[in-house]
Amino acid sequence: MTQKNDFTEWYIQTIQKAELMAYSPVKGSIIFRPDGFELWEHIQEEFNRFLKAEGIRNAYFPMLIPQSFFMKEADHIEGFAPELPWVTEVGNEKLEEPLALRPTSETMIGSAFSDWINSYRDLPYEINQWANVFRWEKKTLPFLRTSEFLWQEGHTAHEDEADARKRTLGILDEYARLCEEFLAIPVYKGQKTPSERFAGAVDTYSIEAMMKDGKAVQAGTSHYMGTKFAEAFDITYLSKENKHTHAHTTSWGVSTRLLGALIMTHGDENGLVFPPTIAPTQIVLMPVGPWKKNPAILEKLEELFASFKAKGIRVRLDDSDNSPGYKFNEWELKGACLRIECGPRDLENGHVMVKVRDLAEKQTVAFDDLADFVDQQLAAMTPRLLEAARNRNKENEYYDIETLEELKAHIETCKKEDKVTGFVLIGWDGTEETEAKIKEETGFTTRNIPFEAPMEKTVDIVSGKPAKHTVWIARAY
Amino acid sequence: MTQKNDFTEWYIQTIQKAELMAYSPVKGSIIFRPDGFELWEHIQEEFNRFLKAEGIRNAYFPMLIPQSFFMKEADHIEGFAPELPWVTEVGNEKLEEPLALRPTSETMIGSAFSDWINSYRDLPYEINQWANVFRWEKKTLPFLRTSEFLWQEGHTAHEDEADARKRTLGILDEYARLCEEFLAIPVYKGQKTPSERFAGAVDTYSIEAMMKDGKAVQAGTSHYMGTKFAEAFDITYLSKENKHTHAHTTSWGVSTRLLGALIMTHGDENGLVFPPTIAPTQIVLMPVGPWKKNPAILEKLEELFASFKAKGIRVRLDDSDNSPGYKFNEWELKGACLRIECGPRDLENGHVMVKVRDLAEKQTVAFDDLADFVDQQLAAMTPRLLEAARNRNKENEYYDIETLEELKAHIETCKKEDKVTGFVLIGWDGTEETEAKIKEETGFTTRNIPFEAPMEKTVDIVSGKPAKHTVWIARAY
Repeated sequence: MTQKNDFTEWYIQTIQKAELMAYSPVKGSIIFRPDGFELWEHIQEEFNRFLKAEGIRNAYFPMLIPQSFFMKEADHIEGFAPELPWVTEVGNEKLEEPLALRPTSETMIGSAFSDWINSYRDLPYEINQWANVFRWEKKTLPFLRTSEFLWQEGHTAHEDEADARKRTLGILDEYARLCEEFLAIPVYKGQKTPSERFAGAVDTYSIEAMMKDGKAVQAGTSHYMGTKFAEAFDITYLSKENKHTHAHTTSWGVSTRLLGALIMTHGDENGLVFPPTIAPTQIVLMPVGPWKKNPAILEKLEELFASFKAKGIRVRLDDSDNSPGYKFNEWELKGACLRIECGPRDLENGHVMVKVRDLAEKQTVAFDDLADFVDQQLAAMTPRLLEAARNRNKENEYYDIETLEELKAHIETCKKEDKVTGFVLIGWDGTEETEAKIKEETGFTTRNIPFEAPMEKTVDIVSGKPAKHTVWIARAY
Repeated sequence: MTQKNDFTEWYIQTIQKAELMAYSPVKGSIIFRPDGFELWEHIQEEFNRFLKAEGIRNAYFPMLIPQSFFMKEADHIEGFAPELPWVTEVGNEKLEEPLALRPTSETMIGSAFSDWINSYRDLPYEINQWANVFRWEKKTLPFLRTSEFLWQEGHTAHEDEADARKRTLGILDEYARLCEEFLAIPVYKGQKTPSERFAGAVDTYSIEAMMKDGKAVQAGTSHYMGTKFAEAFDITYLSKENKHTHAHTTSWGVSTRLLGALIMTHGDENGLVFPPTIAPTQIVLMPVGPWKKNPAILEKLEELFASFKAKGIRVRLDDSDNSPGYKFNEWELKGACLRIECGPRDLENGHVMVKVRDLAEKQTVAFDDLADFVDQQLAAMTPRLLEAARNRNKENEYYDIETLEELKAHIETCKKEDKVTGFVLIGWDGTEETEAKIKEETGFTTRNIPFEAPMEKTVDIVSGKPAKHTVWIARAY
């Protein structure tokens, strides 16, 4: 299955063949196999560095949430109710009150904040949790939409709106940095429309990423809650003026969706492509030619293996009996960044052959130059992948579509010319009617109202009325 | 509440006051507050280093386990059934098959192993998972016994019994090392009696730790499963001789129980005591005397703070308005390893006052000597705490109790003399009757059959028959 023919099918087959994941016997749940889980571990390490620098500490809250808790914030329960799994019995006994498997932890953490926050001196109060969460989705896709997934959820409480909004947007910036600098995924920062807001939020902001097939992935969200959860859970503090005051809260999360976005941004017909920042295998070493007859080849590779390992590089040595062709395919499939080959003639000439995953040609590199070459390539590959993705995105952004008919024509043209429909910038009058109509007729949904739109649109794409906002729309995962 | 008066109550109050945990609205579940969760993070880092060196990789498996899976291994379901929470509905719809919240993942991982293992070349197959698990306990105690807890569970499959048993016991050694070298908790290695085996195991091994009140905590277990799970889940491989063969499997885990053991091993009347290896606060700096009038004091402390931070030391500077006495109490309660004070006279004399958490007297340390002093103390404190705990254990081990009457007399004597009942080494004829009788009459349970018993016991404590094993018994958490 090729990307070109059926991108989703390519995705599903590739992540299984590359052993990132496996389906599980529970509908919509997946197994994160070691290479897949390692991707998540690297994201955790990177984001934990940010949290530590900001003084935001990790904690862990119970997974089961009493039904009565959910009822306290009306929009929240309404939004999540259809997707909630319930524990109703233990052993053979029925529970007095059903317990929900957390879809998110505002209620549990709000209740704790109510106990812990007393004075303005306690604020801001900032907590993060790495956890499994549950949302029973009808249509699932590995990493991108599963019944159980892994994420981090940050929860903060502040003295006032300004401080809470600053944290909300500061986190969005960090999410964008994480995606771009660490995952080489370019993102579009902006505000969600009211219909796409988190259940219970005053404002929701997102970063959106464009996949190779032109579809969007919402890669992270950050919410300003106002005092809504503070009112529902009685999160109050004694202000400097000695008044009981409701705190302003925020929450924000990125999840294992990022793995899906990573794969759909960089993968190619040969399989996975990872930036070295996150690749489980940064270098794979392999002997080629009649290497078993010449033990010096494996010795040389073992020496290189040890020297890379000592530098903290994630390196593997493939000295299996498989043919070179088999090994090439396997390690391209698995997204090893650099493949270093050494055969009898290479050894004789004091060099190796190096294939960089995202460059077309193999290169000859002398043993003496190899350490520097590797450092340079491992540093260059991540920004190069980001640049490539940015360039591709630019080609798939459309600014000149003014009416629904033009949008439909755009979709038709893309189909004919075998192009992706991409992100389309439209004018929007701010009504749900326009959003509903676009979705119904084209399957496009509003992604976000960009902070920095490439241009301002003045007319609503459906109603023809004056636009209140300029909005990115796209088909989305 | 003092340790002396009511150890359990001291424990419950101390961990809450020190903000390690808080109770949650769900019965038997707790919130790990940042200092409490950080303890677990350090254990994760330490054990992950071991796993990486051994080539055992982390993965993540679904939390919900179909009922039919549990049914496949009879002993397993029988052992866990009474404690299992069940998801029976999602939204408003009843599920066709109830899903259990995992109490452990042998069934889920066994099913995956069946798919992934084909040939002897795939073996050993070794996986670890960090996860939340659920066992609905009637009587709960924070960290030590809660409905939801955090743990790691390792699962491995091997070609034969010898290789599987080697892994089982190798892990037990690593658990013992983790407890002793990292947590300064001395442990007793041995084999569990059949009645205390993991549900479905052929053999269970444990490390047992003695708390300050003489009670035992089972701190980690490692199980050899034989081919029982391989038969239940069809984990077979094609051997070198081209025969379909059942793999031999193991599983092993340590959990957030370790936090309870840590606190009950080292804590004192002033609060928590942590070895520097794991302490959330290794050093706390504080200005004393009229420091606000002399800004050079805080400047000096900020300079020290920066220099410790740069060395990777977990350091805090307490420049709050609280009184020195309040601060001393707070940081002793929270288990900071070193308290460094600086007032006007100290600054004048070019020194600081240092209080090491487990040493009685404050020490004067010149600025010039401070870096070395700190390094030396942070290195010395962990083995010193281990040694202290070992010496205390030695005093609370009893080898000369031959009959149930003598055991009862021992308990009476301890009560009168205000001593702890500790670990008692007994002879055991191998029958469940003896175990049941001991428990019924004294509340003692068999801990394990030690690999290295201080002496061999020849007569069963209850039946008077020849002993088959020498066993540690104790009251246990």
